[in-house]
Amino acid sequence: MTSPDLSTTLRADGRRPDELREVRITRGWLDAAEGSVLVEFGRTRVLCAASFTEGVPRWRQGSGEGWVTAEYAMLPRATNTRSQRESIKGRVGGRTHEISRLIGRSLRAVIDVAALGENTVVLDCDVLQADGGTRTAAITGAYVALADAVAWGTAAGHVQPRRSRPVLKDSVAAVSVGIIDGRPVLDLPYTEDVRAETDMNVVVTGSGDFVEVQGTAEGVPFKRAELDALLDLAVAGTARLRDIQAEALARPLEHLP
Amino acid sequence: MTSPDLSTTLRADGRRPDELREVRITRGWLDAAEGSVLVEFGRTRVLCAASFTEGVPRWRQGSGEGWVTAEYAMLPRATNTRSQRESIKGRVGGRTHEISRLIGRSLRAVIDVAALGENTVVLDCDVLQADGGTRTAAITGAYVALADAVAWGTAAGHVQPRRSRPVLKDSVAAVSVGIIDGRPVLDLPYTEDVRAETDMNVVVTGSGDFVEVQGTAEGVPFKRAELDALLDLAVAGTARLRDIQAEALARPLEHLP
Amino acid sequence: MTSPDLSTTLRADGRRPDELREVRITRGWLDAAEGSVLVEFGRTRVLCAASFTEGVPRWRQGSGEGWVTAEYAMLPRATNTRSQRESIKGRVGGRTHEISRLIGRSLRAVIDVAALGENTVVLDCDVLQADGGTRTAAITGAYVALADAVAWGTAAGHVQPRRSRPVLKDSVAAVSVGIIDGRPVLDLPYTEDVRAETDMNVVVTGSGDFVEVQGTAEGVPFKRAELDALLDLAVAGTARLRDIQAEALARPLEHLP
Amino acid sequence: MTSPDLSTTLRADGRRPDELREVRITRGWLDAAEGSVLVEFGRTRVLCAASFTEGVPRWRQGSGEGWVTAEYAMLPRATNTRSQRESIKGRVGGRTHEISRLIGRSLRAVIDVAALGENTVVLDCDVLQADGGTRTAAITGAYVALADAVAWGTAAGHVQPRRSRPVLKDSVAAVSVGIIDGRPVLDLPYTEDVRAETDMNVVVTGSGDFVEVQGTAEGVPFKRAELDALLDLAVAGTARLRDIQAEALARPLEHLP
Amino acid sequence: MTSPDLSTTLRADGRRPDELREVRITRGWLDAAEGSVLVEFGRTRVLCAASFTEGVPRWRQGSGEGWVTAEYAMLPRATNTRSQRESIKGRVGGRTHEISRLIGRSLRAVIDVAALGENTVVLDCDVLQADGGTRTAAITGAYVALADAVAWGTAAGHVQPRRSRPVLKDSVAAVSVGIIDGRPVLDLPYTEDVRAETDMNVVVTGSGDFVEVQGTAEGVPFKRAELDALLDLAVAGTARLRDIQAEALARPLEHLP
Amino acid sequence: MTSPDLSTTLRADGRRPDELREVRITRGWLDAAEGSVLVEFGRTRVLCAASFTEGVPRWRQGSGEGWVTAEYAMLPRATNTRSQRESIKGRVGGRTHEISRLIGRSLRAVIDVAALGENTVVLDCDVLQADGGTRTAAITGAYVALADAVAWGTAAGHVQPRRSRPVLKDSVAAVSVGIIDGRPVLDLPYTEDVRAETDMNVVVTGSGDFVEVQGTAEGVPFKRAELDALLDLAVAGTARLRDIQAEALARPLEHLP
Repeated sequence: MTSPDLSTTLRADGRRPDELREVRITRGWLDAAEGSVLVEFGRTRVLCAASFTEGVPRWRQGSGEGWVTAEYAMLPRATNTRSQRESIKGRVGGRTHEISRLIGRSLRAVIDVAALGENTVVLDCDVLQADGGTRTAAITGAYVALADAVAWGTAAGHVQPRRSRPVLKDSVAAVSVGIIDGRPVLDLPYTEDVRAETDMNVVVTGSGDFVEVQGTAEGVPFKRAELDALLDLAVAGTARLRDIQAEALARPLEHLP
Repeated sequence: MTSPDLSTTLRADGRRPDELREVRITRGWLDAAEGSVLVEFGRTRVLCAASFTEGVPRWRQGSGEGWVTAEYAMLPRATNTRSQRESIKGRVGGRTHEISRLIGRSLRAVIDVAALGENTVVLDCDVLQADGGTRTAAITGAYVALADAVAWGTAAGHVQPRRSRPVLKDSVAAVSVGIIDGRPVLDLPYTEDVRAETDMNVVVTGSGDFVEVQGTAEGVPFKRAELDALLDLAVAGTARLRDIQAEALARPLEHLP
Repeated sequence: MTSPDLSTTLRADGRRPDELREVRITRGWLDAAEGSVLVEFGRTRVLCAASFTEGVPRWRQGSGEGWVTAEYAMLPRATNTRSQRESIKGRVGGRTHEISRLIGRSLRAVIDVAALGENTVVLDCDVLQADGGTRTAAITGAYVALADAVAWGTAAGHVQPRRSRPVLKDSVAAVSVGIIDGRPVLDLPYTEDVRAETDMNVVVTGSGDFVEVQGTAEGVPFKRAELDALLDLAVAGTARLRDIQAEALARPLEHLP
Repeated sequence: MTSPDLSTTLRADGRRPDELREVRITRGWLDAAEGSVLVEFGRTRVLCAASFTEGVPRWRQGSGEGWVTAEYAMLPRATNTRSQRESIKGRVGGRTHEISRLIGRSLRAVIDVAALGENTVVLDCDVLQADGGTRTAAITGAYVALADAVAWGTAAGHVQPRRSRPVLKDSVAAVSVGIIDGRPVLDLPYTEDVRAETDMNVVVTGSGDFVEVQGTAEGVPFKRAELDALLDLAVAGTARLRDIQAEALARPLEHLP
Repeated sequence: MTSPDLSTTLRADGRRPDELREVRITRGWLDAAEGSVLVEFGRTRVLCAASFTEGVPRWRQGSGEGWVTAEYAMLPRATNTRSQRESIKGRVGGRTHEISRLIGRSLRAVIDVAALGENTVVLDCDVLQADGGTRTAAITGAYVALADAVAWGTAAGHVQPRRSRPVLKDSVAAVSVGIIDGRPVLDLPYTEDVRAETDMNVVVTGSGDFVEVQGTAEGVPFKRAELDALLDLAVAGTARLRDIQAEALARPLEHLP
Repeated sequence: MTSPDLSTTLRADGRRPDELREVRITRGWLDAAEGSVLVEFGRTRVLCAASFTEGVPRWRQGSGEGWVTAEYAMLPRATNTRSQRESIKGRVGGRTHEISRLIGRSLRAVIDVAALGENTVVLDCDVLQADGGTRTAAITGAYVALADAVAWGTAAGHVQPRRSRPVLKDSVAAVSVGIIDGRPVLDLPYTEDVRAETDMNVVVTGSGDFVEVQGTAEGVPFKRAELDALLDLAVAGTARLRDIQAEALARPLEHLP
């Protein structure tokens, strides 16, 4: 009698260990925003709005260069039980700050801010429904919204690519990976996330290079071999997300009926 | 040659003065909430989530009765230009407070809180896209979400109707009315709202009685006859909204595919 | 045997249903303010100070026009039991915001802001003692303080009436009305306010037109006929307040001994 | 030719160096508070309300003893130019905190908190008009309001004097002193306060002992002889305030008509 | 002529690429804290105080288990130019939150919280002087302070090791690594930190397993081979830190003279 | 049999009533600050950092003069039991404000702000360990840090003494005095501080004149003779502190090894 082959046993939702949830990217979800995307990783649903705004933060004024920043938030009933609003609490929590900063850094890694002029693109990533992987869905969707806002700004003459260099040097996408029952898996929903021994979020460019690697041992510290296996999974997963992003951007942009 | 008959000339969007925008109510928009509705009044789009939660505010503890409360908020890019998040500002603005309180009062006017036991239903009304009438859309949608949450609570045994009295004594809906170029009109989008001389929000029960009347002269004070004409429009408009609510609740509740 | 005639039975404090409490307006209560009034509606006592200040809010700069704004607050022991200070809580509550905004809108409805130049008149309405009707007393008193501040600004050359148009186009006053035991009554003290089935605050100009109508069903929704009766009472009550304001302004302004 | 005798030259308002401004104490200024006083030192006008409230701060629970605390605040237009409200700023300033703590300590120095049971008397001292010496007027008036609240609590059975010891062991009053043009003066109005080289607030019991001595060199450090002269002035001034307090408390308490 | 061998060229401060700065750990720096360490990584100087406190966060009450948490902060003049205090700003910044959470997670990875009973050890890590690597110095020092607090708690009978299992399952230390001019280097001071193309903080147990891996591309995304080289450096560096921690803990604990 | 001579009986820590604790002043404790001192009064340990910064507060702009300000704070575990951070609470407490203002006023009394140009010296006084007298140690140490910052600013050409007047007109130091068991004592540690009947902090210049006198009766009000005895002790104590400051400033400034 033999133990099951962990690498092929299906997960609770029927996926293989290296399989993404169904990913959907709907562009133009808002009428007014310069770029807007409803991104879905399974049941996780994040609205990403890109606002092209005049001016830059004070410490950047006079540089002639632009800025990209992000704000992440979750609606109170995005989760199984209701959470209190941060506006009511009167302050933004550490987790919210952390994720907002991560999204901003990830997008800045692929954009030529000099081409923006002294303008700021703000990416608002609001989680409408949360089922694990909200920050990775947000980064993946925000890139598409940013691409639309850059196209809008270029058409409007606010963005001026330098020489023949593209404003967006590469694409960027993110995915979560983790170890469950000793087996590395890709793109964890909430029920897997709470059980994972190690949890890692990886942000990767379209070319396959790393922008961010954030791995945390939830219980037992992890070994180098496990870390390597997780990175492999993440690189393969983000390559598929890159293709889904490209397909979405290849479709003509239409507002919802 | 004669001036146009103001009461029949069509509005900028082609509607008659007494015509609602297209109203859509989608139930079950969230997987986890006990009731959830995406309500649309034209381009205005509000997500209403009803959370059935144990316990009541401190001042109500020991009464044996429940409570219904609401929190209204707007995503930063719901509007034409981005607004700062209230969570970042560190405090909730006066307008937000005012509308949250209005929604709560409107719903409490039609529910028998004694039947809820010491439980609270919280209605989160988050404006995803704003094109005028967000508070009236929120009330209209929140009623439907509340009805679903009450049905959930009844099935779960948390809600116990007293004798044969229904928990929801009546339905409730709201609509905006205003005077534009001297002519009373119903359900104003943003472009009409900014031009209105008088702006009124009216909350009416399914039986046609008033729960709230809030009229404000934006420029010139209004006369009694104008007030009467606006109230007539509002009563007719909320009667149609009541029918749309009833149709939505008559459909079987399915989660989005 | 007959039931009592509700319309003539006296109220707990001996007033007829359509009778105001004793109203007193004392001008010049403060030495330094450009306008100041201690207004009393029975035991309700509100100090209204008008400050004529240089400059306007940022969104109005460069318009050449002025602004009028108001801040309402209550001393901690204005009420029967002590309330916590909003400065200690670190934030202003929804009710406070709502009333401040109402006072500001009411006053702006009767002033020609263009005549103010880029100056702001701030009306501080601090409730020293509260016995119902604090917001309506505040509006009624604030109008008188505003009139004194406008006179001060005109004498000082800061206010320049356009052509022959008066800076204050009309006067404005406010009163509360409500339904108690099925009977409409005027100017409710605290003990009546808590018992009222419907509560309405009405702001009316000296000419009898409406600036604000805010009616709320506290328990049972109200019928159109009830609404009409309440509006009639409010129009009559504010007409008497207009006369009291005019008498106060006709007296020479003296500082308290 | 000789220089004027500094010790006898009159001050700008006609007072001798060792003369108080006109001091008025009006008891029962509020209908609901257990003790309330409008205290006036010349144009400085402070409303002191004493609230007898059940319970004590957490760190004192279970001690069987009571507490006395104070909150000082200034209305925005108490001064020559309007100040922003601390509730709007969202925090209480250092000066406000400092004075609140001083008032609380001063009153606790003369009361037997054990006699209060686990109750707290809160003294709200709100400056309606400020012309120098607001903290000393507040302490002087708050003592009288506290005496009335203790009398109320004794009559109501909440306060139980231990053996034959009085609950209030002594009275307490405060006055400001300062050095102007090299001459020590008593009870400084605003115009003197800004010119004073040294500014001192002294809190003294009815028996003439010190509760607080707070002296600050505004410009040049002060010498021991100057300090001694200021203390002499303050002791004489507070002795007169003690008599005025006693006279006020000897009158029967009536509410304002 | 050849280019210099990057792997052996010395750094600006004379160190080899794989060399730590001078690390000093002074135990017992505070008289009252249950554990306290002044840790220095070159000029970076962090005071780590461990407070053994009764009780656990609300969500953990009744579990019978304890908790370890951390708060990181920086004195305003720890850096080259003064920063504003977060207490004055009224809120804790995102970076502060992020690092506080990282320290807490790192320590919890090596402690058996069940052995603590319902007690919490709070690690306050205050940066007195900052020259790069403050979070890694904080983790490295905090582990030693925690070890002393656990020893204190064991001696006092508050900590009860389960069976023969040690309360601290392993040690934990952290170090920064980065890529400068294309060359991986260990333990970056501020001047290197601002120049690094990639910046990574790695938290490793005494056994050499990973607790946290946080890598960020500051400019150009990094390749897998670079990531591997950085991890190698970090594992070697934290092994040396583990030895320094062990030596510090082997010395008798004396308070400073 | 005779009672002990109170004036000569030694205190719990072996000191005479008029004896300071061991005072140590270490200059140059930080590498980057323009002036920095670790000051110790026995176990009380305060880090004073002087930052020479460009610009002055808004109300002083255009005056051509500079400013000196201070911020006092305590690390959470400076005391026997841990206190919550004010940054986490979201606001600075009254005691913190009060002491910060006291330190600022004390230093401004001895500096010629006109010589600073429009620059501000900020003194950050952070209590690393608290054993009574933290505010007096802070003032005493901050003066030395300020002197170093002024020397730095003079060497850098930012400070320009007017004519031949020194920028620092005098030195300033502070000490606490109190009455314990009826006996006046100097420089109270925590255990004496909590027992003192009267507590006084006195700030004195090098010439022996007073800058601040703050005396508080903790229990029983104090008599004039007691006040005089305390002032005598304080003047003698600050004279010794002046000498210790002078010795510290006479040593060459070296950074810690």
